[in-house]
Amino acid sequence: MRMSMLFSPTLKEAPKEAEVPSHRLLIRGGYIRKLAAGIYSFLPLGNKTLRKIENIVREEMERSGASEVLMPVVQPAELWQESGRWEFYGPELLRLKDRKGGDFVLGPTHEEVITNMVRHEIRSYRDLPRNLFQIQTKYRDEIRPRAGLLRGREFIMKDAYSFDISEDAAHLSYQAMYDAYNRIFERCGLEFRAVEADSGAIGGDLSQEFHVLAETGEDSIVSCSACSYTANVEKAEIRIEPALEDASGLGSLENVPTPGKHSVEDVAAFLEVQPSDLLKTLIFDSDQGPLVAIVPGDREANPIKVKSAAGLEWFEMASDETVQAVTSAPVGFAGPVGLKARVLVDVHIQEARAYVTGANLGDTHSVNVVPGRDFMIEERADLTLAGEGDPCGKCGSPFGFYRGIEVGHVFYLGTKYSVPMGATFIDSEGKEKPMEMGCYGIGVTRTMAAAVEQNHDEYGITWPMSIAPYELTVLALGNDEELMSQAESYVQALEAEGIEVLFDDRKERPGIKFKDADLTGIPFQLVIGKRGLESGELELKNRKTGEKSALPMDSVVASIAALIREERALFAPKALK
Amino acid sequence: MRMSMLFSPTLKEAPKEAEVPSHRLLIRGGYIRKLAAGIYSFLPLGNKTLRKIENIVREEMERSGASEVLMPVVQPAELWQESGRWEFYGPELLRLKDRKGGDFVLGPTHEEVITNMVRHEIRSYRDLPRNLFQIQTKYRDEIRPRAGLLRGREFIMKDAYSFDISEDAAHLSYQAMYDAYNRIFERCGLEFRAVEADSGAIGGDLSQEFHVLAETGEDSIVSCSACSYTANVEKAEIRIEPALEDASGLGSLENVPTPGKHSVEDVAAFLEVQPSDLLKTLIFDSDQGPLVAIVPGDREANPIKVKSAAGLEWFEMASDETVQAVTSAPVGFAGPVGLKARVLVDVHIQEARAYVTGANLGDTHSVNVVPGRDFMIEERADLTLAGEGDPCGKCGSPFGFYRGIEVGHVFYLGTKYSVPMGATFIDSEGKEKPMEMGCYGIGVTRTMAAAVEQNHDEYGITWPMSIAPYELTVLALGNDEELMSQAESYVQALEAEGIEVLFDDRKERPGIKFKDADLTGIPFQLVIGKRGLESGELELKNRKTGEKSALPMDSVVASIAALIREERALFAPKALK
Repeated sequence: MRMSMLFSPTLKEAPKEAEVPSHRLLIRGGYIRKLAAGIYSFLPLGNKTLRKIENIVREEMERSGASEVLMPVVQPAELWQESGRWEFYGPELLRLKDRKGGDFVLGPTHEEVITNMVRHEIRSYRDLPRNLFQIQTKYRDEIRPRAGLLRGREFIMKDAYSFDISEDAAHLSYQAMYDAYNRIFERCGLEFRAVEADSGAIGGDLSQEFHVLAETGEDSIVSCSACSYTANVEKAEIRIEPALEDASGLGSLENVPTPGKHSVEDVAAFLEVQPSDLLKTLIFDSDQGPLVAIVPGDREANPIKVKSAAGLEWFEMASDETVQAVTSAPVGFAGPVGLKARVLVDVHIQEARAYVTGANLGDTHSVNVVPGRDFMIEERADLTLAGEGDPCGKCGSPFGFYRGIEVGHVFYLGTKYSVPMGATFIDSEGKEKPMEMGCYGIGVTRTMAAAVEQNHDEYGITWPMSIAPYELTVLALGNDEELMSQAESYVQALEAEGIEVLFDDRKERPGIKFKDADLTGIPFQLVIGKRGLESGELELKNRKTGEKSALPMDSVVASIAALIREERALFAPKALK
Repeated sequence: MRMSMLFSPTLKEAPKEAEVPSHRLLIRGGYIRKLAAGIYSFLPLGNKTLRKIENIVREEMERSGASEVLMPVVQPAELWQESGRWEFYGPELLRLKDRKGGDFVLGPTHEEVITNMVRHEIRSYRDLPRNLFQIQTKYRDEIRPRAGLLRGREFIMKDAYSFDISEDAAHLSYQAMYDAYNRIFERCGLEFRAVEADSGAIGGDLSQEFHVLAETGEDSIVSCSACSYTANVEKAEIRIEPALEDASGLGSLENVPTPGKHSVEDVAAFLEVQPSDLLKTLIFDSDQGPLVAIVPGDREANPIKVKSAAGLEWFEMASDETVQAVTSAPVGFAGPVGLKARVLVDVHIQEARAYVTGANLGDTHSVNVVPGRDFMIEERADLTLAGEGDPCGKCGSPFGFYRGIEVGHVFYLGTKYSVPMGATFIDSEGKEKPMEMGCYGIGVTRTMAAAVEQNHDEYGITWPMSIAPYELTVLALGNDEELMSQAESYVQALEAEGIEVLFDDRKERPGIKFKDADLTGIPFQLVIGKRGLESGELELKNRKTGEKSALPMDSVVASIAALIREERALFAPKALK
């Protein structure tokens, strides 16, 4: 492809609103352009990368036994009313009326449409299992679209839906998708983790998110290298190891004045201790009355875990009234001793150790507060966000900490849609049963952005080969006809080897060509200039490593072809399990 | 692919509303399902055919030098206001509001979005020409969606847009698209015609429609086999050949009573002449006053041609008042003699021939009315729909008549969008100029339906190989394990040859398998049953021709592979001009 024919305008500066690297670099590199908030056009380079991701997704979905379908963007409201989501989905569901006043939505997802399709066609256990997927444009009316493709309104998803005769069979379908997702992100050349996800009220632990690891990721993940248990910090189970040591050598509780010291940092500094030597006493109102959570001073309480550990329907920070009733003290000096409420103590708090806590007295803290001696531990629970070094809930080995971007989700749905929508089948004994469903999504446009978040440097993008728009870019330095025609003949020879070549034949200065090549991030750069042609050696640069090699002119095509075939092999389909 | 894993439910009966063959057969064959009026889901077989058409389109568009992009479905209203189409597009443009009350549309086409994109990025003649295309979901809120995919609301289009520095350059871009479209429809295996289209006020004759020929087509086309001039019957130019023969041997005009005879058929039967011996006298009111069109009794006047020949802004059937003023007679007996109005005489009317006409008297017709003798011919014009046998307007050879379905349109736009939207460039002399644009559409889903309209018989679809969902279907007759495993090994061997095989491994009776295979229309059917296996020969059927051949078992894979490669070659990319 000649760059002079391509529409790939590069920019020196990204628009101000572009804060994250993928947003900045995809715009600067001429991959995408904004049409409206959260709505982007894909320019030729962007479209090429999209197609490559789509093809990997399609190939691995088909290998898993799923069949591709294509469902409409515009969906009738009746189906959403039937499933109950017309009411519950909220304003992210874009509702619209056609010219006859009929209610429709722009599909943010397709559970209703697929369930409707399947219930009309599948009647017998003999027609199950089925797994149907599509790759298609979706719309979610985000209130604050941001970060370019990472949180857009119009986006492309691969969504798949499985239908089974039983929960066991559904678990097999789920596993096949889990395996396919691993193959997909491996072939995209991305470092990723499958993360235990909160599956809410629906069922079991059959819900996992796939996260591309990137420093800029919004999600915090811990992962155990020993047993490979990986979870969001909000969900990760930490091993509960009660330390029942002897507290007899510790001094007795003592109150010290700490006027004007409120924050953990201020108190710790004032008393010359570490934040981890303090305990925080958090008081909530809940559907079960007042509740107290005690956590170490250096850790954040995790609302999801608190709610789940205490078995609450709802809770919120306590009112002043509650605080005063529970602590018998003014607001702001709560401590764990002598509380009139149910108390949960975080697993990180040791029993045979002295802590600093609030004294339940104005401008005062207590020192030498020993849990189990100075206050009873009636309920221990995992109440804080997991962090680096915490003991893995499955095996006790220390967690590693990562930041991630969610690009995929596999979810066992059970009968959530099949029951209200009447998607049933007749089983082998003649009984009517609801189908067991699963749903499985991959954000295709999001994966493109996440790939950039993970693969970039100060100069631009560093695509993995399998999803780069081209495999090699040939930079012709200088505009004289002879050089151009020599460059052209190299391009033709390389293309004849089946290599995807972007030929920078623009009438631009070498500096601009080098900069644009680094910015767009095509994996290999071949430089063809007068100096090289005279010396008999051409320079090949590996964009990611920066490594440069001088290749003899007579073997340059063969060398590059070999190199690219080798690189491609890394991302080729792997044998199925 | 195992049919037992595929989701392809066939139906014995199509829904009542499905009147045209493609609608009936695509539903019955398990290719599509309706979600709402004019909105369809594509099941796995339908999706496969879609992808095949898309791939042919993509390949030939890229070969023509165009680059693929992807623009959003949801478009901001401002751009449509800028182009003026927000006001003028009418209710087919589905307007909607996002959660913040912003005005948007569901894109029925993308001139505004692409012009907006290009005007911000292209500034110099050095960056032109460019041709950008996309394959994407569009929406037109048809008032009466019908005929399945032929006139749906949500559909897939390939749309392309070219940008050039001058009209001459734009014509080259247009020609490249015209050539690409010919290659595309040839490779789809379709019989089609490129048809001169009415380009309205925009410019010249640079507008052509591509029609797939089918008896069920909505459009009527004439095509000259001598010079290949092809046009819609409403637009086709017919050669004007005034026949200035001697009328001296003809009898004189005579009035005969024709009580109660009004229609051409009734009068012709009553007077024992042919409809072609009558003249119809049609009277209109127009912006230029009363207007009369005289056309042969066996031909329909064509409003488009009448309007254009007379140079009218508007016209409609005359009021009774006008008729009486023009004919000096009651309504219903108009004839060409002695009229008080401007009169246009159709080119088919001969000057030295006696006709039957209205007599401008109640219940009376005139016979022996000779044009040029009994009434003056002041203006001759082409006023009727072209038909079979009419002389071609370019070369005079007789037209052939066809019915067609419009599947593509190439259009020279000029500066229609670039001027109002300010898409300009700086030319080589430093002057700012508007870009010259063209737009080029292919209805991808429509092409799928049109292919079925052209390729079907009483049993089902007869796909051309290049767009069939699979190339071969293998029917295993009987359910015993040994037969199944033998069939399976043939399927594997055929797939190993790179053939796309649909394996009917369902536990169904042979009759159902045969019927479904004919219905879905995969080009070749290989039957594997006990009888064949015992006799040492397997039966291969060509779906389209019905031809059956018995292939020796030991060479069956090689024979089929050779046959399919041969068939594929017919649809392979052809060398570019």
